[in-house]
Amino acid sequence: MTQRNALIISAHSADFVWRAGGAIALYAQRGWNVHVLCLSYGERGESAKMWREPGMTLDRVKKGRQDEAQRAADILGASVSFMDCGDYPLRVDDTALLRIVDVYRELRPEFVLTHSFKDPYNFDHPLANHLALEARIIAQAHGHAPEQGVLGAPPVFLFEPHQPEQCEWKPELFIDISSVWDRKVAAFEVMAAQEHLWDYYTRVALQRGVQAARNSGRKIKHAEAYQCVYPRVCDDFLG
Amino acid sequence: MTQRNALIISAHSADFVWRAGGAIALYAQRGWNVHVLCLSYGERGESAKMWREPGMTLDRVKKGRQDEAQRAADILGASVSFMDCGDYPLRVDDTALLRIVDVYRELRPEFVLTHSFKDPYNFDHPLANHLALEARIIAQAHGHAPEQGVLGAPPVFLFEPHQPEQCEWKPELFIDISSVWDRKVAAFEVMAAQEHLWDYYTRVALQRGVQAARNSGRKIKHAEAYQCVYPRVCDDFLG
Amino acid sequence: MTQRNALIISAHSADFVWRAGGAIALYAQRGWNVHVLCLSYGERGESAKMWREPGMTLDRVKKGRQDEAQRAADILGASVSFMDCGDYPLRVDDTALLRIVDVYRELRPEFVLTHSFKDPYNFDHPLANHLALEARIIAQAHGHAPEQGVLGAPPVFLFEPHQPEQCEWKPELFIDISSVWDRKVAAFEVMAAQEHLWDYYTRVALQRGVQAARNSGRKIKHAEAYQCVYPRVCDDFLG
Amino acid sequence: MTQRNALIISAHSADFVWRAGGAIALYAQRGWNVHVLCLSYGERGESAKMWREPGMTLDRVKKGRQDEAQRAADILGASVSFMDCGDYPLRVDDTALLRIVDVYRELRPEFVLTHSFKDPYNFDHPLANHLALEARIIAQAHGHAPEQGVLGAPPVFLFEPHQPEQCEWKPELFIDISSVWDRKVAAFEVMAAQEHLWDYYTRVALQRGVQAARNSGRKIKHAEAYQCVYPRVCDDFLG
Amino acid sequence: MTQRNALIISAHSADFVWRAGGAIALYAQRGWNVHVLCLSYGERGESAKMWREPGMTLDRVKKGRQDEAQRAADILGASVSFMDCGDYPLRVDDTALLRIVDVYRELRPEFVLTHSFKDPYNFDHPLANHLALEARIIAQAHGHAPEQGVLGAPPVFLFEPHQPEQCEWKPELFIDISSVWDRKVAAFEVMAAQEHLWDYYTRVALQRGVQAARNSGRKIKHAEAYQCVYPRVCDDFLG
Amino acid sequence: MTQRNALIISAHSADFVWRAGGAIALYAQRGWNVHVLCLSYGERGESAKMWREPGMTLDRVKKGRQDEAQRAADILGASVSFMDCGDYPLRVDDTALLRIVDVYRELRPEFVLTHSFKDPYNFDHPLANHLALEARIIAQAHGHAPEQGVLGAPPVFLFEPHQPEQCEWKPELFIDISSVWDRKVAAFEVMAAQEHLWDYYTRVALQRGVQAARNSGRKIKHAEAYQCVYPRVCDDFLG
Repeated sequence: MTQRNALIISAHSADFVWRAGGAIALYAQRGWNVHVLCLSYGERGESAKMWREPGMTLDRVKKGRQDEAQRAADILGASVSFMDCGDYPLRVDDTALLRIVDVYRELRPEFVLTHSFKDPYNFDHPLANHLALEARIIAQAHGHAPEQGVLGAPPVFLFEPHQPEQCEWKPELFIDISSVWDRKVAAFEVMAAQEHLWDYYTRVALQRGVQAARNSGRKIKHAEAYQCVYPRVCDDFLG
Repeated sequence: MTQRNALIISAHSADFVWRAGGAIALYAQRGWNVHVLCLSYGERGESAKMWREPGMTLDRVKKGRQDEAQRAADILGASVSFMDCGDYPLRVDDTALLRIVDVYRELRPEFVLTHSFKDPYNFDHPLANHLALEARIIAQAHGHAPEQGVLGAPPVFLFEPHQPEQCEWKPELFIDISSVWDRKVAAFEVMAAQEHLWDYYTRVALQRGVQAARNSGRKIKHAEAYQCVYPRVCDDFLG
Repeated sequence: MTQRNALIISAHSADFVWRAGGAIALYAQRGWNVHVLCLSYGERGESAKMWREPGMTLDRVKKGRQDEAQRAADILGASVSFMDCGDYPLRVDDTALLRIVDVYRELRPEFVLTHSFKDPYNFDHPLANHLALEARIIAQAHGHAPEQGVLGAPPVFLFEPHQPEQCEWKPELFIDISSVWDRKVAAFEVMAAQEHLWDYYTRVALQRGVQAARNSGRKIKHAEAYQCVYPRVCDDFLG
Repeated sequence: MTQRNALIISAHSADFVWRAGGAIALYAQRGWNVHVLCLSYGERGESAKMWREPGMTLDRVKKGRQDEAQRAADILGASVSFMDCGDYPLRVDDTALLRIVDVYRELRPEFVLTHSFKDPYNFDHPLANHLALEARIIAQAHGHAPEQGVLGAPPVFLFEPHQPEQCEWKPELFIDISSVWDRKVAAFEVMAAQEHLWDYYTRVALQRGVQAARNSGRKIKHAEAYQCVYPRVCDDFLG
Repeated sequence: MTQRNALIISAHSADFVWRAGGAIALYAQRGWNVHVLCLSYGERGESAKMWREPGMTLDRVKKGRQDEAQRAADILGASVSFMDCGDYPLRVDDTALLRIVDVYRELRPEFVLTHSFKDPYNFDHPLANHLALEARIIAQAHGHAPEQGVLGAPPVFLFEPHQPEQCEWKPELFIDISSVWDRKVAAFEVMAAQEHLWDYYTRVALQRGVQAARNSGRKIKHAEAYQCVYPRVCDDFLG
Repeated sequence: MTQRNALIISAHSADFVWRAGGAIALYAQRGWNVHVLCLSYGERGESAKMWREPGMTLDRVKKGRQDEAQRAADILGASVSFMDCGDYPLRVDDTALLRIVDVYRELRPEFVLTHSFKDPYNFDHPLANHLALEARIIAQAHGHAPEQGVLGAPPVFLFEPHQPEQCEWKPELFIDISSVWDRKVAAFEVMAAQEHLWDYYTRVALQRGVQAARNSGRKIKHAEAYQCVYPRVCDDFLG
């Protein structure tokens, strides 16, 4: 049986948990290899709690966030790797960009999840989106590393930002994550540095669950919402 | 086995052929009952060729367009009914609106296809869109004709207008209609009054086919494109 | 001391509670006369629970919803009146429109709260928005009932719809309602017909509270969010 | 020599002066027949000064505004007619709509000027826009009054609203009106009821003139700006 | 008494005068420390008049523009500093970006004014906007220079570009600057290199004044308009 | 007689043929000097067919694409130059940007054609757009290379991307290319590496032709469509 793959491109080491933890757990449970690529550890901008400890250093923060992310990925059933490109500001040069291209070519994901196009509160997120899309396009080019095979056209979905309306992000696809909700919570709770977000993202899942139910007539308790980058192609309106 | 139903709400008697003929044939072939509700015959605004015949009358035009639409629906495998609300301008009062509500409640469609939100070349089309959505909402109200059961939440898709960019319409879903393309062409060719559109909509299908292929990596020759009104709810990114 | 007034225009009898209950309680507490104008009782479309009782009639539903709305308004400290224009669909003719104009002219509100511009799930809400704005404009016309004085230019704010992103509604103003949250909850709980919304709108208030805190650096637990129709005019960036 | 025609559709009796007076004078000077169709006199909503006179009546206001509009049209070199549909709110039923269709069919204008799509300060303006476009579409229908010839596809341009950004209106075409500016001013000054607007629209013309110069490198002092409804068709990028 | 601070981030040395001179004078008059940070002198792209003098050099232009900007700031009551990053094109590397972060951390402004998101006539302006927002976000990160305290969440407002509609900029906040208009004019008139803009921005202030009056019912002669980047948080609809 | 010039800025070596070949041939026929500036050869991302040949090298692909582009330009009557900046990803540093500025200053084009603002399938295209606009702005700056004369304000038009709706591109100007269609086809057919696009762009021209006819009432068979970046300035609504 062929291994099926999905790729999650996350600006900081915890984004994938809050924003796509349910989808990751769902696909891992189905036997997919879900790989999370963290462009940074969120060491500067998303580790406020650690920085309040006296004598904290950048390396210790990075190490701490990496450990957490690894444990969360383990709980969700995903693999994870880190590019250590720095955060606030995230900076990815062309060498690093081509490493993302390599990940695409090696993994050959059937779908990709990443950040929103815009975020006036966080410039690393839109940059991660840009890189995820740009690397995907380069991976499709026949003349880039022509000895490798080109990538197909995996669809890309954008997970929910912290303040969705301010980011001009819109839910276009609801994924029912009720069956893996306990796993997402378990992964949440690893993120000791961001305990203030546990309740917030629990409520997000419940609100999106109510909306998913209302848009489908199905019974759904917890959901994640995604925006679609490319049109969907199929032979069915439903499903 | 339960009969499955789809509803197409068309401003004029031929719109469903050009814009959704492939999807209709596809679902008819799968055993669905696809019902087309024509709000008018397009007798004034979309029958130029008939009006060029000497001595033409409104009744003869209506009768001619109804016959054509019936034959096209037969070819596609759909049923069709007509509300005779007039065109250019289409005018639908609340009595007629509640008849559309009845159609929703009786048919209980699993999905609905109708016109785009805007069209600066044709005001009947956006009105049909408005009525299709408004009737759907009323059909969901527990207090409307409470002795009947309420409607669920069937998704609504908007078929392609004649000049898509001017209508702010965007393809969000491509349906592969290659397997029923010959039926769509046969239904086209019934529309003798609008022969000038045959080539136009053949090219539309080919262009959308190329785009569908490019967005999916699948081999697709002919496609129809739709915009989505409501978010999709499912447990799968693909499909 | 001059009585200060605010006007809330609500499509159905309960909308003002979920969407603006905090702001209403806040201003009532400050001694303002807050008047809620309900265009309908929400008798058909927002009273599902009552309709499930055997032998229910339209009049009993209306009476029930009116009683609830009155009790909720009492708790919030607002006055309320009802226009009984029907719902699903709401229909307001020019006679009724001019009654809304009269309310503007009599009340002379310093601000107005109403529904969003768009809502693909509910066509009564955008219609209420349209009527609220149109009546305001007529009330400003010197030649409309010229014996009365004209209205000034009260700002209008749009309260949060059920599925904000689908309605293209955007939070532009957060009001801290923490101090009156218990009143809003008490008003909530009067709405026995819509018990399923209690938790939903509690979570909305908490999410908007977190966002309000993040956008201001202030400690805020519960908030309501509003979109602005007109530009704000003042001599201060803050406040 | 064939008479060339242009049609201006104006919600109130003075709109055409402020918003399109330059273009009207320019084409009149070139020998065109420019016809202004005023849907109302602006008697209620745009005649504040007259209503401040004691004992003023609706009929006297209408008569006064009609006289002013006629004199302004004379100065600009245009003909003008009035439909007396009422203002604040403007209300145009289908009978009146078909009279506008008749105007299109009789005049056969080569271009049309009317109001913007949106205006949150004035609901008569967007309605005039809607009617202008809807009547144009009906006039193109072969089955509407088939004994008359159908209308071609005259382009439609939207003149500048009072608060352009709030109306989501955008200048896409600048017309240099420097050569007829004195005529526009003379027409302005007829509008005694709206003297407060003289300076405002003089400044609008100067600002648009600076912008027109900057976008073209030409020397332009006074300009009017328009938004385009339909794409332009030609064989030249310039011009 | 605590010193209150505001920060103006200006791409070129004169932008702050035309676009925010009134607001600066208003807050200076109230005792605030208003600091203007000029990313460049506008030496290449906004000093046409100086370049027409024979034998002009880049250094002399820079020096001239700096002197003018200093004098204008003095008149307005603001302090000013210059980063000399170059213009047409403005280029700001990460070292310079972190200097802007330092300015945020040192000044701790209560609000920030900068350029619009887009400007198809001037690419330095949107870049200044981007830098102003990015630096603000970095200044909020606990792990950036952790020995310093983090920045709060000062609101950001975008001043009016030269051709507002082309920049997709919208007035959302009008500030009454009538009381300091004479100071703004005095600052204007220092800008000898851009004399052609004096009248233009005088008219802008008058037009925005009329609009501010219309949106508030207050008497306002001169105003400046701003777009808001983040939602406003408060406990009052008015003010 | 003065030589008149136009500038086409193309990301890859073949874009100008598919997207603007008709306009180029039209102006060449009129005696204009139309210059095409290719930022890259499209060697990696748009040469799939060549890369399928065994032993292909980057240099051979570049050479092949350059030859094709030269032959196509010859057929269309244009001159062409190449900047060899690389593709997938295209990368243009400030030195190269200033070379584009030089081209503007030397050529002094009366109009410019380039790519769309956005393209989620191709990041080189929006970058070419950005560079074309940025270089134009720098070329207008009096202080850039002050010994040269500054550029005026040539209008810029954006040619049609491959999937127009996904790129948020909108046809605002149709150019009738029927008279030079055979030349465009001849230029097409040089592009052996992209034979799969011949039919696609033939259909694009026919669809745009139908739309151009419908928007003008003129007989037009083949057209190209463009979006406008800047407002048009003229003294005529038609033309």
